[in-house]
Amino acid sequence: MAKLQIAVLGAGSWGTALALVLADNGHQVKLWTHTEAQAEKINESHMNEKYLPGVQLSDSIIAYPNIEEAVLDADMIVFAVPAKATREVAEKVNMVSRKTAVIVHVSKGIEPDSHLRISEILEETLNSEAMSDLVVLSGPSHAEEVVKRHPTTVTAASDDIAAAEMVQDAFMNQHFRVYTNTDVIGVEVGGALKNIIALAAGITDGLGYGDNAKAALITRGLAEIARLGTKMGANPLTFSGLTGVGDLIVTCTSVHSRNWRAGNMLGKGHKLDEVLESMGMVVEGVRTTKAAYQLADKYQVSMPITSALYRVLFEGVHPKEAVDQLMARVKTHEMEDLVNILEDQDEKTGN
Amino acid sequence: MAKLQIAVLGAGSWGTALALVLADNGHQVKLWTHTEAQAEKINESHMNEKYLPGVQLSDSIIAYPNIEEAVLDADMIVFAVPAKATREVAEKVNMVSRKTAVIVHVSKGIEPDSHLRISEILEETLNSEAMSDLVVLSGPSHAEEVVKRHPTTVTAASDDIAAAEMVQDAFMNQHFRVYTNTDVIGVEVGGALKNIIALAAGITDGLGYGDNAKAALITRGLAEIARLGTKMGANPLTFSGLTGVGDLIVTCTSVHSRNWRAGNMLGKGHKLDEVLESMGMVVEGVRTTKAAYQLADKYQVSMPITSALYRVLFEGVHPKEAVDQLMARVKTHEMEDLVNILEDQDEKTGN
Repeated sequence: MAKLQIAVLGAGSWGTALALVLADNGHQVKLWTHTEAQAEKINESHMNEKYLPGVQLSDSIIAYPNIEEAVLDADMIVFAVPAKATREVAEKVNMVSRKTAVIVHVSKGIEPDSHLRISEILEETLNSEAMSDLVVLSGPSHAEEVVKRHPTTVTAASDDIAAAEMVQDAFMNQHFRVYTNTDVIGVEVGGALKNIIALAAGITDGLGYGDNAKAALITRGLAEIARLGTKMGANPLTFSGLTGVGDLIVTCTSVHSRNWRAGNMLGKGHKLDEVLESMGMVVEGVRTTKAAYQLADKYQVSMPITSALYRVLFEGVHPKEAVDQLMARVKTHEMEDLVNILEDQDEKTGN
Repeated sequence: MAKLQIAVLGAGSWGTALALVLADNGHQVKLWTHTEAQAEKINESHMNEKYLPGVQLSDSIIAYPNIEEAVLDADMIVFAVPAKATREVAEKVNMVSRKTAVIVHVSKGIEPDSHLRISEILEETLNSEAMSDLVVLSGPSHAEEVVKRHPTTVTAASDDIAAAEMVQDAFMNQHFRVYTNTDVIGVEVGGALKNIIALAAGITDGLGYGDNAKAALITRGLAEIARLGTKMGANPLTFSGLTGVGDLIVTCTSVHSRNWRAGNMLGKGHKLDEVLESMGMVVEGVRTTKAAYQLADKYQVSMPITSALYRVLFEGVHPKEAVDQLMARVKTHEMEDLVNILEDQDEKTGN
């Protein structure tokens, strides 16, 4: 395929890892950093010591602290900033008189209060004339493994399948496999809400509850994500895919996950303030819990894990008390937890 | 509830752990052991040193090497033997002139060649007059955690919901939560086939491929289990539940799992014979791979992971070659992997 000019906005671990994948594929990559000092360090050492220590970056990745220079001639702009910085960075991009580009985002979150998904924030903020298409790239993918060229599989989703395929072509290589999907809502909701379950899984692990409890939590977590997502307009099948169960598994069971690590500290008795301070990186699941809690109310969906975590994070309930209440819910028919995921389909089929 | 006389057949780790749960609930438990020496040791020490070292068993668990004594007056008989011993043990039970009992099984496998599930083997073998109902108990539940009274959640499934509820009542306590389900096929197929994916996950871990690859494998494994199970008559939703994705996660990500451990050794270059010898316990996934490979052909279902593992186990293909082929399948639309799970429903709804 044609070699592209690509701007990657955000030089955290994931932005940097994706820059490396794109450089491996022969594209010219401009990596926008938050500070001038960070850009200088990356361009001098060809490493991102803060977020991916020891990883050699290709010479075709150039860091820029100036967003205008990064996006000016880009064919594709990849937003790899924390969810809550999306709007601010999109506004900066908008002030540049630049060529039309495909917009890709790889952030995971839902805005509290407005309840907007990342793609909705971008659509609302970016000039539509300077955006040919909008694609979300998501899936089970720790940056630390991607830079080692370990096999990784993700999904590119867009309303326009041709745009998803263009992004697929740009990122796909022998180690980094990209599937396409047209269910943007399902991919974004699954990616955002898995961080809630990862926080909760960290808590059960921090409490010393073991793998059986965690598997039950992940299973019931997937059901509540699918219930809400389906009400929001997602295809329920998407939650059985890479961006649903796949990303959920990797985030809940891997030591690389920040959300799991934050939950683990909470389970061990640390206070939320302490935990957030000691992490030094954004813990997306905290804000997402607030947004999902509000959405559960708005759509009248039962989300017991999200509600329990909300009480722990924002109402000072002790993690052990919240988890024990969750585990001790009255005995019930398993399908009660699952059936309403597909209730629209059930109505149609008369089951 | 009423206190029952319960026979647990098989004093491996899972049979012993379930005996402990039942004894915790006040039932009288007779634990049938394979040898006289094992029964003596258990009754003397109130421990099962071979399979659950260090765990104190209740005095109300008595071990019997004689199956007649174990089942004679039982209200409930729990089959906790390796899948391939099911038929032989059921024949022994049948020779006893005993009172009518509820039959529970907790084994995970499908018989190669006959393709019978465990409940079908039991139905075919046991006198129907001496069996009031048949229930399968399954879910994400490592014995090592159950005996520590860590929170565990499983499913009791039966064609007859009242029978499932009776088993739920017998096993349920504060730590061991039991849901009910009426989809016996789905629960048995999910339980059996997850061992195939666990073997494959062990292989990718043994090859050093990391969490991203394993999450992709588990996701695609779940899809192929659901595809086959649905063709066999299961409710596709069951695969999103505890006995589907829940059990799959715990088996693929926990060091307790024998199937994962066996796969891990294969991935590190050991031969199948060596691996099976060194395990010293039954590795159900090996036989199940054969059965599922035959079933995929019978039902004309695409099962790429099962096929790859079959080639590794039975045709001498190198694990790395098989996994690399799996990962390198042509780029595709994600839904192609998922949609035919629900194709019957799609036909009905006209989607």
